[in-house]
Amino acid sequence: MNRLNEQAQGVYVIALTPFTETGELDLDSTDRMVDFYLERGATGLTVLGMMGEAQKLTIEESRTYVRRILRRVDGRVPVVAGVSAAGFAQMQALTTMVMDDGAAGVMIAPPSSLRNDQQIVTYFRQAAEFIGDTPFVLQDFPLVTSVTIPVSVIQAIVDEVPTCVCLKHEDWPGLSKITALRKLSDAGESRRISILCGNGGLFLPEEMARGADGAMTGFAYPEMMRDVVHFHRIGERDRAQDIFDAYLPLARYEQQPGLGLAIRKYIMARRGAIATPALRKPGGALSPADIADIERLVARQENRLKEIG
Amino acid sequence: MNRLNEQAQGVYVIALTPFTETGELDLDSTDRMVDFYLERGATGLTVLGMMGEAQKLTIEESRTYVRRILRRVDGRVPVVAGVSAAGFAQMQALTTMVMDDGAAGVMIAPPSSLRNDQQIVTYFRQAAEFIGDTPFVLQDFPLVTSVTIPVSVIQAIVDEVPTCVCLKHEDWPGLSKITALRKLSDAGESRRISILCGNGGLFLPEEMARGADGAMTGFAYPEMMRDVVHFHRIGERDRAQDIFDAYLPLARYEQQPGLGLAIRKYIMARRGAIATPALRKPGGALSPADIADIERLVARQENRLKEIG
Amino acid sequence: MNRLNEQAQGVYVIALTPFTETGELDLDSTDRMVDFYLERGATGLTVLGMMGEAQKLTIEESRTYVRRILRRVDGRVPVVAGVSAAGFAQMQALTTMVMDDGAAGVMIAPPSSLRNDQQIVTYFRQAAEFIGDTPFVLQDFPLVTSVTIPVSVIQAIVDEVPTCVCLKHEDWPGLSKITALRKLSDAGESRRISILCGNGGLFLPEEMARGADGAMTGFAYPEMMRDVVHFHRIGERDRAQDIFDAYLPLARYEQQPGLGLAIRKYIMARRGAIATPALRKPGGALSPADIADIERLVARQENRLKEIG
Amino acid sequence: MNRLNEQAQGVYVIALTPFTETGELDLDSTDRMVDFYLERGATGLTVLGMMGEAQKLTIEESRTYVRRILRRVDGRVPVVAGVSAAGFAQMQALTTMVMDDGAAGVMIAPPSSLRNDQQIVTYFRQAAEFIGDTPFVLQDFPLVTSVTIPVSVIQAIVDEVPTCVCLKHEDWPGLSKITALRKLSDAGESRRISILCGNGGLFLPEEMARGADGAMTGFAYPEMMRDVVHFHRIGERDRAQDIFDAYLPLARYEQQPGLGLAIRKYIMARRGAIATPALRKPGGALSPADIADIERLVARQENRLKEIG
Repeated sequence: MNRLNEQAQGVYVIALTPFTETGELDLDSTDRMVDFYLERGATGLTVLGMMGEAQKLTIEESRTYVRRILRRVDGRVPVVAGVSAAGFAQMQALTTMVMDDGAAGVMIAPPSSLRNDQQIVTYFRQAAEFIGDTPFVLQDFPLVTSVTIPVSVIQAIVDEVPTCVCLKHEDWPGLSKITALRKLSDAGESRRISILCGNGGLFLPEEMARGADGAMTGFAYPEMMRDVVHFHRIGERDRAQDIFDAYLPLARYEQQPGLGLAIRKYIMARRGAIATPALRKPGGALSPADIADIERLVARQENRLKEIG
Repeated sequence: MNRLNEQAQGVYVIALTPFTETGELDLDSTDRMVDFYLERGATGLTVLGMMGEAQKLTIEESRTYVRRILRRVDGRVPVVAGVSAAGFAQMQALTTMVMDDGAAGVMIAPPSSLRNDQQIVTYFRQAAEFIGDTPFVLQDFPLVTSVTIPVSVIQAIVDEVPTCVCLKHEDWPGLSKITALRKLSDAGESRRISILCGNGGLFLPEEMARGADGAMTGFAYPEMMRDVVHFHRIGERDRAQDIFDAYLPLARYEQQPGLGLAIRKYIMARRGAIATPALRKPGGALSPADIADIERLVARQENRLKEIG
Repeated sequence: MNRLNEQAQGVYVIALTPFTETGELDLDSTDRMVDFYLERGATGLTVLGMMGEAQKLTIEESRTYVRRILRRVDGRVPVVAGVSAAGFAQMQALTTMVMDDGAAGVMIAPPSSLRNDQQIVTYFRQAAEFIGDTPFVLQDFPLVTSVTIPVSVIQAIVDEVPTCVCLKHEDWPGLSKITALRKLSDAGESRRISILCGNGGLFLPEEMARGADGAMTGFAYPEMMRDVVHFHRIGERDRAQDIFDAYLPLARYEQQPGLGLAIRKYIMARRGAIATPALRKPGGALSPADIADIERLVARQENRLKEIG
Repeated sequence: MNRLNEQAQGVYVIALTPFTETGELDLDSTDRMVDFYLERGATGLTVLGMMGEAQKLTIEESRTYVRRILRRVDGRVPVVAGVSAAGFAQMQALTTMVMDDGAAGVMIAPPSSLRNDQQIVTYFRQAAEFIGDTPFVLQDFPLVTSVTIPVSVIQAIVDEVPTCVCLKHEDWPGLSKITALRKLSDAGESRRISILCGNGGLFLPEEMARGADGAMTGFAYPEMMRDVVHFHRIGERDRAQDIFDAYLPLARYEQQPGLGLAIRKYIMARRGAIATPALRKPGGALSPADIADIERLVARQENRLKEIG
């Protein structure tokens, strides 16, 4: 049985939610996308995340979508589901639903109303009570949540809540936070949990060097993350960085607030991973100039990858 | 058939969601509460609002609760349901659910991500497309949503979206906004919609004088709102204000951010409208000093009401 | 020598900044206003606060204004000056300026960028280093600063920073915060500092009952605050509340965000304390309907005060 | 006479404020830094910007610093000064000060309190009244100001306020905004103003392609911006992008919120442009791991620049 734990590593791809041109769930594309991710090195998938248009689905659609993902994955890698919700009862219901269907764990981001250390610790303690023994990922994403979680608070949560097994690190970029957390666990002062990094992978080489275990993000070229993690692991840090640098111009372009998801879907459709780049309303739309930018960056990226071999 | 329209007036009470001590929906109290509100002058009810702990319910619980309300109301007054949601699909599903069950309309607040005029108009136009011909209340509550909606934007929404039939006014207090909207509709430059005021009723006499049609808020003494609206209607403005002033010390106390709902539930339980003041987690809890404050204010209020006859 | 300390009590009025109709500092009105406040019970004055239009003054004007205030006060009561600034060097320069001119202490609000406990404590520790031995008031006003300061953080600041002698309490209303702080100091676990309450005085009776030492706010009827504090002190709590209730309808009206300062200046001009209600741009302007509201509330207030004797 | 106008182009470097190790203004380094920027292609300088630690200076220090800059520049390029302030009187005083000393224009960012279109237009109209005929740059930086300015509002400001001559574009990245503005001015529907781009230069090639006139940002390698602008101008877009890509890994690292300025100062000190990387409190400090990251990225950057010739 796949159950998320402190050893999570590699590349947990934040999965897209494919739609048809008319805005329906595209389940065939969902299958194809799962294969695409796994063939390119995903060691896990994360669904219903902020960049997965989760908030645009009804509960019934969420269930249909997650079940389809789980069936296609068929136990090959663990699947984590975002269950952040306005209330604990909803979070609990969503957790029960996805865990019953075979998910490996859930992911929880703090609500933006939290404003001090004690509120944050209390929130995660209460959330953990509601979801029982389900292992969870603590999503630390201040740019979106506007909640800043200091190292001491993460440590307090890890100490008090044994089901917190992983940190989705996207305190932008917060390299020193990784360093501090690893120092604490190396010194035996805190349980060592998995740290997987977000932010579109834009700081992945440096994050790996600080002690991260991998990536949890959705850049349309998962092979970049796979290779950076791999070459870092085997000590070839320059090789890791060469590959990263080749993808960086496009990764940077994809990481634009507001437009990023439309760009990501465009590339995924272009690569054949999904049938169409359609977003559900409200969603950004690419202009011809945007598409020209992407095509140019993709062509340059391919050239550069050939150059570095 | 009760269907919300531009003639809505009087007192639409924002209904509580009663829970048992163990955190379950308390459906018997729900019945009792409905009777309590209607006996004290409610001309409508609003459920699943921000102060109704709606966000703490699962979808199934929301349905159970709304159905119970609707059955007890049994067509005596219109019932409006809050359907604000992170995505349009959820909003649509929730709207279909409550309207099928007999609600008169829905209420929609803008998401806090909206940052300029065009975004706000577009949001409500798209929302209206998703909910079809369902009449809706536009909730204008900047203190909570952090979205400030200028008069020109409200006018644009009213002009473009015929299903927008009511404004829940709680731009704090925004008396000039009521004046401006009424000037526009009186001059025939904009459709006249209903304006019902929130903010715990703290500005109700002045709001009525500016042209509001009533209140939509949840102060634990609905009779205050009923009387203020009534005496204002029949031209006895001083009488309206005398009654208002008698309730004001407690109304002010109830309107405390963070603690307000716990105070409201305490009073409602004290008045026999619900069995227990329990809130679902996370929720504020009253200290003995808080309760002493309330008891003192209630006693003084009763004296003052006797004095003014 | 008047130097602010932990024994501060009574009514520290947040002073207006009077302007002429053409937007110049009105220094004659400044004198008159000082007399007005002192004759109505002010035991201290606070200048350059958020409601004093401090941010609309140049440095030179701030100096001119503060000097005029200090000369007129002439040592009769302590004067506190707001020195919140974007940087510590400015805060230091402003502090030196006002203290050299004879102020009793300064007031500091946290910048809205602070997002966790340690950041808040560090900020006040650094601020205290910059202003040397100057006693200061910690302004706790989450509604405006969006910084929520838990009791434990206030305690940490009080423990680490001996020059923190007073809390301007306007965590809305945060009665339990006063209770908790007093419990700590009564138990000898924390130094007892002065607690003076803001929020336009809207919760003053309850705040006094929880252990506050008085008010620090700018309601245009300082005699309300004086009397509430006085009668509470001598144990006549009902009398205190009767007086409070008589002023409450107007105090509530004055406390409107956006428009509050214009209302306050209108009343102060009406009472003869300043020559004209002019605000510097950008500033709210009262409509005829607003003025009619105020006149009505003032007339009712006078009647009610007569009734209660 | 250098006076900022709609033809501004090239690279306006956001200048650092150099301090000594003990936190004093370092005026010798200020001279050296000016030479450094001008030798590497600056066609203008912008001082007292958000990344210039302007908010940490007293008024007197601001004056001393700006005068030193202006004396060293000695008319070779135009100098723009940030004058964003909490009030118009301060903005006016600061503008008078820097313009009297020889600045070419000023830069104004909207205060975060602005929440709708009309408020934004009104703010800039009033600001322009206060600063008279001084030409100004409109800083559009939502990530920091949290004010989102739609194209129609920029157009309204350009139409109503003739002294608005330049847009500092850092709506992240808002490429479509540049496209829309250029379409309007190309069609003769709006005055064409200069567009200079910020965001650390992270989108400069694409911004140039959309019609920007250059950069206004402070990346520690101004030659990157110079070359990208130059090669784009002469039609060698691939060459521009090759150079950009070589600098991108470091530019990305420098653009970290919270730590970015410390990184920039470290590189500038390393390059000999300033004596020491000291920041005034409060300011981020680099760890040994951060410095190792930078050294690694600099070395790789130098190699890559050699490769592309």
